[in-house]
Amino acid sequence: MSKYTYNQITPEIIEQLKTAANGHVIVDGDINEDFSHDEMRIYGENMPDVLVEPTTTEEVAAVMKICNDNKIPVTPSGARTALTGAAVAILGGVMLSTTKMNQIISYDLDNYTVTIQPGVLLNDLAEDALKHGVMYPPDPGEKFATVGGNVSTNAGGMRAVKYGTTRDYVRSMTVVLPDGEIVREGASVSKTSSGYSLLDLMIGSEGTLGIITEMTLKVITPPETTMSMIIPYPTLEEAIAAVPKLFAAHLDPQALEFMEKDVTMDTQKQLEKDVFPSEMDGIDIGAFVLATFDGNDEDEVMDKIEKASEIVLEAGAVDVLVADTPQLLRDAWAIRSGLLDTIEDNTKLLDECDVVVPITKIPEFLTYAKSLGEGKDYVIKDFGHAGDGNLHIYLCSDGDDKEAFMQESDIFMKKVYAKAVELGGLISGEHGIGMGKMSYLRDMVGDKNMALMLGIKKVFDPNMILNPGKVCFSLDAE
Amino acid sequence: MSKYTYNQITPEIIEQLKTAANGHVIVDGDINEDFSHDEMRIYGENMPDVLVEPTTTEEVAAVMKICNDNKIPVTPSGARTALTGAAVAILGGVMLSTTKMNQIISYDLDNYTVTIQPGVLLNDLAEDALKHGVMYPPDPGEKFATVGGNVSTNAGGMRAVKYGTTRDYVRSMTVVLPDGEIVREGASVSKTSSGYSLLDLMIGSEGTLGIITEMTLKVITPPETTMSMIIPYPTLEEAIAAVPKLFAAHLDPQALEFMEKDVTMDTQKQLEKDVFPSEMDGIDIGAFVLATFDGNDEDEVMDKIEKASEIVLEAGAVDVLVADTPQLLRDAWAIRSGLLDTIEDNTKLLDECDVVVPITKIPEFLTYAKSLGEGKDYVIKDFGHAGDGNLHIYLCSDGDDKEAFMQESDIFMKKVYAKAVELGGLISGEHGIGMGKMSYLRDMVGDKNMALMLGIKKVFDPNMILNPGKVCFSLDAE
Repeated sequence: MSKYTYNQITPEIIEQLKTAANGHVIVDGDINEDFSHDEMRIYGENMPDVLVEPTTTEEVAAVMKICNDNKIPVTPSGARTALTGAAVAILGGVMLSTTKMNQIISYDLDNYTVTIQPGVLLNDLAEDALKHGVMYPPDPGEKFATVGGNVSTNAGGMRAVKYGTTRDYVRSMTVVLPDGEIVREGASVSKTSSGYSLLDLMIGSEGTLGIITEMTLKVITPPETTMSMIIPYPTLEEAIAAVPKLFAAHLDPQALEFMEKDVTMDTQKQLEKDVFPSEMDGIDIGAFVLATFDGNDEDEVMDKIEKASEIVLEAGAVDVLVADTPQLLRDAWAIRSGLLDTIEDNTKLLDECDVVVPITKIPEFLTYAKSLGEGKDYVIKDFGHAGDGNLHIYLCSDGDDKEAFMQESDIFMKKVYAKAVELGGLISGEHGIGMGKMSYLRDMVGDKNMALMLGIKKVFDPNMILNPGKVCFSLDAE
Repeated sequence: MSKYTYNQITPEIIEQLKTAANGHVIVDGDINEDFSHDEMRIYGENMPDVLVEPTTTEEVAAVMKICNDNKIPVTPSGARTALTGAAVAILGGVMLSTTKMNQIISYDLDNYTVTIQPGVLLNDLAEDALKHGVMYPPDPGEKFATVGGNVSTNAGGMRAVKYGTTRDYVRSMTVVLPDGEIVREGASVSKTSSGYSLLDLMIGSEGTLGIITEMTLKVITPPETTMSMIIPYPTLEEAIAAVPKLFAAHLDPQALEFMEKDVTMDTQKQLEKDVFPSEMDGIDIGAFVLATFDGNDEDEVMDKIEKASEIVLEAGAVDVLVADTPQLLRDAWAIRSGLLDTIEDNTKLLDECDVVVPITKIPEFLTYAKSLGEGKDYVIKDFGHAGDGNLHIYLCSDGDDKEAFMQESDIFMKKVYAKAVELGGLISGEHGIGMGKMSYLRDMVGDKNMALMLGIKKVFDPNMILNPGKVCFSLDAE
């Protein structure tokens, strides 16, 4: 049992919350079942007692003050697209949803920033920015996540290889601390050496240190032209070996994804498309790289495509297919974006990991991971970001025994995480720790780093009310 | 008086330190006077009792354990080029110098990283990287700082406008905590969502949280060609107004510096050069922009230069001077690099600030700062990074009364920092807080953020032995 104790919500507290949140409060049985889980139900499900949906920083501050004064656990919630159980209200209490805080507040087009509320969806920000003549570069696969959720996990995405991760685009934020006090971290400028970076500490903290209520993000001038190419290789090893050569030649790809044959063929069959060949010139295709290049005019991008073609053909690619029609471009990326859905649709039980390893270690790592699956009751499927070594590996089972599957998965995960760390990598590149990966985080960073994180958590949240049981704050361990 | 108490170093402790640091220990009168101050003596001078110069992580760990067990204050020290008093041993005790930890350990040219000890000088790393066919992009003005010092202040530099600051290039580090325990933060990969970013917390923490003993840094393929241009304008306002137009046109300058007339003329006179014209075509020149563009071949860079020329001439530039000979290029940048030396050489008393404001606010901010100097006993000089709004402002006095000057400076600094924050900026872009700017940091971030920082400090350093009196840990305030 935990040494931390919390109180139950009383009718009086509910009335106070209604006043604080301007009436945006839903109680018990009226709360939609969706609020009991994220996209990985396997890590746990539980309903909050009260759902609060504030619309302003001040409302969030008033809600937090009530919960802190009464020691009520609070679980922050965005679009609930996480894959780690980060937004499950495991102790009940209050769920604080940011989805009504969905305003794009303003653009500063001279200083290249946009200021938004945290509940804006990535897709909405991306489209709105383009309408204003600028681009928000982070491009995680899940377009209907909230940007607040992206910031809270330091989400990466396809374009990270050229443009970096979400962290690189957060200039400043307004934060409501667990006690209801409002602070501001960072500033809308690109350089800072002004004390500890509390801004960077908030980024990736998965709603355990404070509630982000407003953010100023960096945007850029969008590239004028974008083109993609499909590169089939006999083996994954050859596909990965060519990657450093593309960097050395200054080709600066915007995206560089790898896809192994089986999951690619399954997906294009499911989507009824025919873009990726299973064999060419009598050669069996083992893996594909899907690459995008961007630039300021068509000549520049065609030049990059030509140089990249020379390099990959020299390095063992069977052919190069330029996605030179809008239809082909859309189809190729629709298949890439559909890989996870296809895996989910064709399996009963699913677990996943999101390791990141140095690029050149991708084949060694995947060979090892696949060897662990030999003779087991689960099947391993994977795809990932060849440009930055971030791999998504799925354990799929058609069995009915969830407990047995979780035990098998735990054995698998412990081994692959240890391997990732041994190769110089990390246990999560972009999905986070949440509830599902805390013990693996401890295995990776060690007891001392976990103690530092828990110490920081206590500095921000002395009553330990915010998102209990997540990241570094285990309810079991203490 | 502080509520923290420390012990004096005894002969027994010195013997233990000698064993711990393999004999690299210098005591009292044998310590060079240089170790009593950094480059801004105005913020205080004090000699350490013992100078320890370890060569390995393990030696640092052994030294820290002795100091922690005996409650001896420890001040980390690199090349002592700071401008904030960050490395002054204000309580005496042990100074832990990293200058003997100056090995470039290894390159991983496929994954684009280099691993070094913290005492490597920036200049040495930059040159060595180029010999290995890669570039370390951060380019702070002081080339003889240690890279450990750069990381500890998140140093920026000229190329930050295109390539980012030091933070963007730190992949992982080995840290000795104040109690002597060794931890590792980050990994040699580019994406992470694996718990709180202790790596980002260490970056910019100015030696108050732990001793960095090894770092893995990102490097890139260097651009093939680099060219600079000098752009004279009648006024600073016109010079700055053109900056967003360069970004909008995708010109992506590597460096974009502004220099006002007086300090530029003083410097080129001192250096006996004649690059920057004081008037052209009968028009009095008020400010210059010095811009560098890079690219993969000469055509690409010339194309950028031509496009930039059109934009700036349209925006009010008097002319455009392309630094198309190696001599002209060297001279132009020698003058830019010599601005601070000229200011230092021509003044008895000097104070400085390093604010950063949104780019478009530069003229408004400088007009305000200069207005504060009217009728005062000091003269204001400035230059800065037009591409990112980071400004270096110097208060220069030929008087002899240091106390009176410091009081005048304090009034000035309080006002300019408040203005920087009002305009959306920060009090330090790249120099840090150290000892000289703690009270201004509190004014900017507020008591709550200061309390969070101090709380974090206590988590890392319960005995508060590491770099007392710096950043957020005031010896007076508690």
